[in-house]
Amino acid sequence: MLIVADNLRITSLIVEQAIGDFNPEPLTKLISNCIAAGAKAVDINPGPLTRNPQEIIAFLVETVRSVCDLPILVDTVHPQAIETALSLLDGKAVINGFSLEPAKLQTILPIARRYNAQIIGYLLYPNGLVPPTAQEKMQVAVTLYQEFAKIGLAPEKLIIDPIAAPLIWQDGLFQNREILTVIQNLPELLGFPVKTIAGLSNLTCGNFPRSVKKTVEQAFVPMLALSGLDYVLMDVLHRETVNIVQTCNMLLKEDIFAL
Amino acid sequence: MLIVADNLRITSLIVEQAIGDFNPEPLTKLISNCIAAGAKAVDINPGPLTRNPQEIIAFLVETVRSVCDLPILVDTVHPQAIETALSLLDGKAVINGFSLEPAKLQTILPIARRYNAQIIGYLLYPNGLVPPTAQEKMQVAVTLYQEFAKIGLAPEKLIIDPIAAPLIWQDGLFQNREILTVIQNLPELLGFPVKTIAGLSNLTCGNFPRSVKKTVEQAFVPMLALSGLDYVLMDVLHRETVNIVQTCNMLLKEDIFAL
Repeated sequence: MLIVADNLRITSLIVEQAIGDFNPEPLTKLISNCIAAGAKAVDINPGPLTRNPQEIIAFLVETVRSVCDLPILVDTVHPQAIETALSLLDGKAVINGFSLEPAKLQTILPIARRYNAQIIGYLLYPNGLVPPTAQEKMQVAVTLYQEFAKIGLAPEKLIIDPIAAPLIWQDGLFQNREILTVIQNLPELLGFPVKTIAGLSNLTCGNFPRSVKKTVEQAFVPMLALSGLDYVLMDVLHRETVNIVQTCNMLLKEDIFAL
Repeated sequence: MLIVADNLRITSLIVEQAIGDFNPEPLTKLISNCIAAGAKAVDINPGPLTRNPQEIIAFLVETVRSVCDLPILVDTVHPQAIETALSLLDGKAVINGFSLEPAKLQTILPIARRYNAQIIGYLLYPNGLVPPTAQEKMQVAVTLYQEFAKIGLAPEKLIIDPIAAPLIWQDGLFQNREILTVIQNLPELLGFPVKTIAGLSNLTCGNFPRSVKKTVEQAFVPMLALSGLDYVLMDVLHRETVNIVQTCNMLLKEDIFAL
């Protein structure tokens, strides 16, 4: 399970201010810290991009690239911003992402095709709502994969995000158990070793004390790892949770004794 | 997953000294702390019992009972000590435990029958060695269950310990992945919802720094929980690991949304 840093998001004051000033310095420091802490990819989430979408995304992409070669996840719904990022990165980026929502199928998925880029597909209904049960999530995964395959991308370009549920949702606990089942079953369901990603901080969005957030993340992330999750989107600057992830990787690493 | 405190073990200096002096006071304090910390059962491990086995086990049982009604696991290979404990507890204790080793089949298993007590069965070969693969462990489980059933105990009296492997073993990582598979499959294999227990500190026995021990335990215990483990034998006075266990229980709790 590889760690994708979610630290470059507009909800961070440092990031918001650096974007506002087009000042790369606080970001290069932040990115270096993320790499030192164990990030294997960086998600850039510039928020709604109501002004200067292309300038902002270009600034973020170039700032990350000034520090490292790690894969970049372009985490926005803004088609021009996605295009700009992919163009700067020669298509070597991950679009984050699309779903069965018609606007995303029509505007975002074709960008992935044009740049032959990897793309994350969210398990959401066409109306944007989250299917509650594992069975419904897997039905959505099948339809999502059909839409994805239809435009001619190779299967390995798809990464599925089953959508970790906020625990404050009425059925949040249930849904998170269901996504473990989904992660376990997706490769067999789709017939190839489809990669999966989940956002760990989703579970505790809302008004939890930080210590509770961290304990929930630390209890859930080994379950995600055991279920076969490939990428975990998380705060890589929280050392204890990173230690847990790395220890999970050690515990689950295939070795010569795996028969 | 319920926490069984492993804190009443002879390897603890406090416990060793209290037993040496037959002084209940340090133990009643320790037991109270364990209960406050979340213990739902107490394992008493008096070591080899080379002198005064019955007096020592009686002292430990009575000391625990002076504080609480929690289930007691009698963790010794000494048949007379087991008899003494079960006799004091009217058979309402868990014998920890037996295996396919001939001496244990012949002397310990019959005590469970005589007192109609619960008993833990270790997945070990008759020579005391640990079967390496999940398949071999499950073959041992089948034979163990046959031996158990032969003497006429009801299935629910059996608790299986698949033996968490020390990571310093050459194939320790592999074996611990295999025990997750075993825990997941035992109920279907044996045809009834057999309970399982595992000793968390086994993983890190040897010369690990305490922080590494705790990270390993915190990464592995959610995997055990997700695999369906019923009882985890652990240091209940380590608050962070207990928080993780309790959070696992919260995350995995069946609720009205489980269809």
